[in-house]
Amino acid sequence: MKTKAILCSPGKKVRLDRLPTDAEGGGEAKAEAVERTESIRPQLRSLQERLYAEGKRGLIVVFQAMDTGGKDGAVRGLFTGLDPAGVQVTGFKGPTSAELAHDYLWRIHAMVPPRGMIGVWNRSHYEDVLAVRVRKLVPDEVWRRRFEHINAFEKMLVDEGMVLVKYFLHISHDTQRKRLEERLADPSKHWKFDPADLEDRLHWDAYQSAYQDVLEKCSTPWAPWKVIPADRKWARNFALMNDLVEVLQGMDPKPPPARFDLSRVVIR
Amino acid sequence: MKTKAILCSPGKKVRLDRLPTDAEGGGEAKAEAVERTESIRPQLRSLQERLYAEGKRGLIVVFQAMDTGGKDGAVRGLFTGLDPAGVQVTGFKGPTSAELAHDYLWRIHAMVPPRGMIGVWNRSHYEDVLAVRVRKLVPDEVWRRRFEHINAFEKMLVDEGMVLVKYFLHISHDTQRKRLEERLADPSKHWKFDPADLEDRLHWDAYQSAYQDVLEKCSTPWAPWKVIPADRKWARNFALMNDLVEVLQGMDPKPPPARFDLSRVVIR
Repeated sequence: MKTKAILCSPGKKVRLDRLPTDAEGGGEAKAEAVERTESIRPQLRSLQERLYAEGKRGLIVVFQAMDTGGKDGAVRGLFTGLDPAGVQVTGFKGPTSAELAHDYLWRIHAMVPPRGMIGVWNRSHYEDVLAVRVRKLVPDEVWRRRFEHINAFEKMLVDEGMVLVKYFLHISHDTQRKRLEERLADPSKHWKFDPADLEDRLHWDAYQSAYQDVLEKCSTPWAPWKVIPADRKWARNFALMNDLVEVLQGMDPKPPPARFDLSRVVIR
Repeated sequence: MKTKAILCSPGKKVRLDRLPTDAEGGGEAKAEAVERTESIRPQLRSLQERLYAEGKRGLIVVFQAMDTGGKDGAVRGLFTGLDPAGVQVTGFKGPTSAELAHDYLWRIHAMVPPRGMIGVWNRSHYEDVLAVRVRKLVPDEVWRRRFEHINAFEKMLVDEGMVLVKYFLHISHDTQRKRLEERLADPSKHWKFDPADLEDRLHWDAYQSAYQDVLEKCSTPWAPWKVIPADRKWARNFALMNDLVEVLQGMDPKPPPARFDLSRVVIR
């Protein structure tokens, strides 16, 4: 079981074609990964409870990926079973007209969770330097400035008590083809099939290159990116579960001490 | 009529005790200032209409001042008579518990107006490096980091199409005393009298020094501070009206051209 999150070093060039998308091992490895993912889940649950009880810091988990990269599945795989009162999942779809009338960080900032909570972002402000860039929705000089905004925005969040974890779910061109074919073949998955995904697939290289820029320019000491090999869902989920629990253990949230002398409390 | 907004140069030390709070001239000067303020008002109105019609950029006008400095009066004096659909006034009072559970810019960003609008902020994110600092509500290292956050936040807003105008209404220690006395003497002004203002008056020097830091560290090429001599309300309003109209003239908002050939339109 060697599938692990790959940390992007701040300022270092990233070559996605040299980073693994696949996991090692077959059926046995899968059974083991699934079992170990489940065996860690109670720790995630208990850490989330402690974060909530502490109420001083918050956690934001960002998921970005190519189409069919597994964002929905990763959110489900990681956060199912947690107290839903402590987890706030936001899927950032195409912006509304009210959102477009504001700066691109306006709707993002609004969804930053309060202290004590875990905010899960399925897509994020990074679309404003990814899809927006590849589809040429704004002039070059507009999206180029945004790397700096984003780093400053995330720095502010971290200074004010948030922890940011950013996962890029890394799949191969071939895996995307297979998954799109599956969606077409399975009527229960038709609702997920968007012809626009085919259009975006034609721009695979442009997206990979835009992602490389994001991973290089927005991996900061305060909010680094992590690449998750994601061709196999079980390996992806195992790597994510492991990494997220490690992050929360590092935060070591502590419920505040009792505000009264417990030995004197009498329940009548 | 020499009362004018004083522009703070980015990075330059500010000595508030060397900047005027008073205006020249007596009764005649006042009559002239009031008349000229009113004669400019239609320009402000027309510029606001053009900004709205253009719908591409927005304007944020920030007011900060010591207690009794005239923020409410300035907002009334400047924006009364404009189309209220194009103006959004926000008074940032003490934060709610939901606001306190987020970073200090969260509630501010939420109130950034959409493009086409004028947002008027009576107090602002600057309280988080002013009152919060003087009242020691957070450790020193926390508010010190905020100057950088604020500059980056404002840079992002400007890059994305907003114009920021920041006015510090500058009054003397003596003017504050007189105005607090007036509030006490006039029952119709009692609702404005807050005993906490007396507490803050005791910290006058600490506040002036905190303001000096703000004017020095957060006057940027993209969003400079302006000091308005504000001991006399008529002079203050004249200086503000003049300056704001100049800012909007500089923006030169233009309604978009007709999207159809007007000569072919027939109303049946």
